[in-house]
Amino acid sequence: MPRISFVNGNYLPHEQATVPIEDRGLQFSDAVYEIISFFGGKPLDLIPHLERLKKSLEGLSIKYDVEKGYFLDLLEQMIARNKISDGIIYIQITRGVAPRDHAFPKGEITPTIIATVRPLDMEAIRNRLTNGVKIITVAENRWGRPDIKSTSLLGNVLAKEAAAREGAYEAVYFDHHGIVTEGASSNVWMVNNEGILVTRKTDGKILPGITRLAVVKTQKGAVKGIEERPFSRDALKTAREIFLTSTTSFVMPAVNLDGKSVGDGKPGPVTRVLQKAYQKYIKEQTGQTVF
Amino acid sequence: MPRISFVNGNYLPHEQATVPIEDRGLQFSDAVYEIISFFGGKPLDLIPHLERLKKSLEGLSIKYDVEKGYFLDLLEQMIARNKISDGIIYIQITRGVAPRDHAFPKGEITPTIIATVRPLDMEAIRNRLTNGVKIITVAENRWGRPDIKSTSLLGNVLAKEAAAREGAYEAVYFDHHGIVTEGASSNVWMVNNEGILVTRKTDGKILPGITRLAVVKTQKGAVKGIEERPFSRDALKTAREIFLTSTTSFVMPAVNLDGKSVGDGKPGPVTRVLQKAYQKYIKEQTGQTVF
Repeated sequence: MPRISFVNGNYLPHEQATVPIEDRGLQFSDAVYEIISFFGGKPLDLIPHLERLKKSLEGLSIKYDVEKGYFLDLLEQMIARNKISDGIIYIQITRGVAPRDHAFPKGEITPTIIATVRPLDMEAIRNRLTNGVKIITVAENRWGRPDIKSTSLLGNVLAKEAAAREGAYEAVYFDHHGIVTEGASSNVWMVNNEGILVTRKTDGKILPGITRLAVVKTQKGAVKGIEERPFSRDALKTAREIFLTSTTSFVMPAVNLDGKSVGDGKPGPVTRVLQKAYQKYIKEQTGQTVF
Repeated sequence: MPRISFVNGNYLPHEQATVPIEDRGLQFSDAVYEIISFFGGKPLDLIPHLERLKKSLEGLSIKYDVEKGYFLDLLEQMIARNKISDGIIYIQITRGVAPRDHAFPKGEITPTIIATVRPLDMEAIRNRLTNGVKIITVAENRWGRPDIKSTSLLGNVLAKEAAAREGAYEAVYFDHHGIVTEGASSNVWMVNNEGILVTRKTDGKILPGITRLAVVKTQKGAVKGIEERPFSRDALKTAREIFLTSTTSFVMPAVNLDGKSVGDGKPGPVTRVLQKAYQKYIKEQTGQTVF
């Protein structure tokens, strides 16, 4: 069966899905995106993802009305046409096509919208969720608005490649004061050496993660509470537990940081509890037991 | 006559020039570019541009052999097919097409190469070169490697848009210490209040401008010399003269900074001398008197 992708209202064989070379997404990374998971054909946290998409578009003054019905239909069509029930949809909206000039084009231009779907390798993910992953720390190298989910991702690409070269799953950024921001494609959490669950607040220096938000909700009753505040790379190095959250990481234990074991080198008890709480959250929305 | 553009060896009507939606240039701004001017059909500083292109590719570990003959042929074809003798060619090379994953794709992938040409509005440029332009200062907001000429340009886009909204030609960046880096698409020079010509050295925090390099060469004998060193936004505010250099700015006088006149509000004598020296430099290479 051919892979079907989406460009500006059209469902096309993937290899025919293209954009003009003067699309501002290609020439300026003048574009935003979302990745939404679905299980049993049902999207997880569709509304928060669409709300964030709206904020990202507003952050770049891209005029595009985010309508829930449009994206529900897109999702249903992509799932049906690609016959995938558990996977992710990638949606990107660019400012559109215009003769190259840095500043926004004068007059109205039509944003470009593209989408692809692909299955998630849940077996590999479950394996990582059970055993934990290795992570490294790297110096912050991104542009000034990581809170906007844009495709200006070259810093993230280089950080992820640095991680991959060391056999690590994720690179965690620290700024020039030694303070952790977030992972190159995830939010970072720790249980510190006093047993307190800590994650950075959404202060403009991190992406407001949708999974982060869900875990903030689902931790209630599961753990004693969380502190949303900045923390240092040094504090991370003495943490009892570390985990990452993102759409494709779920609640991912990090058991090795910069080559050293985190705690006893196994996923910790708080992480386990939060994994279970998040699993329940997914089941409530989609009916599926995912991991 | 239809506009002809270039994609991976093919010369196509511009509207048919496209890239696949999973090109890493579109999804990650994992791409580099150059803009080279030509006058009377002859490129200006082709070799330095190709050398910088090579460095940008190396900086991102994109495996692509930059061959002079290939680009000379591309330039000749694009000039002939579009019947433009004075203009610019835009060349972009992306890492290529691959299933979406931040880290570099495993195995070999073929970089994507695209190009467009367009005429320069020399009348408008001459007008600006004669009368000078307005500029503003903005806080540095770019990713960590502005020395790589990449398409991760969203910070530059927002800075340029901020300038455009104030009727200014360029936005000049200053870092969190108040030190000037460069313009959003140009290098910045000043004649300071002691009469010394100053521009930042190529220290990794600015793009090594090709026009900058030419002016460093052509100033010899034209002015008493230059100091290549960092300087502050405060120093810029007391400068006698300010000018910008870039492929499409040439030696562009800035006569108004953040709403206040620079010097007497007219292009200054050192700027004039350097304009003439650069004009001579262009004529020696291309045979054309450009401005």
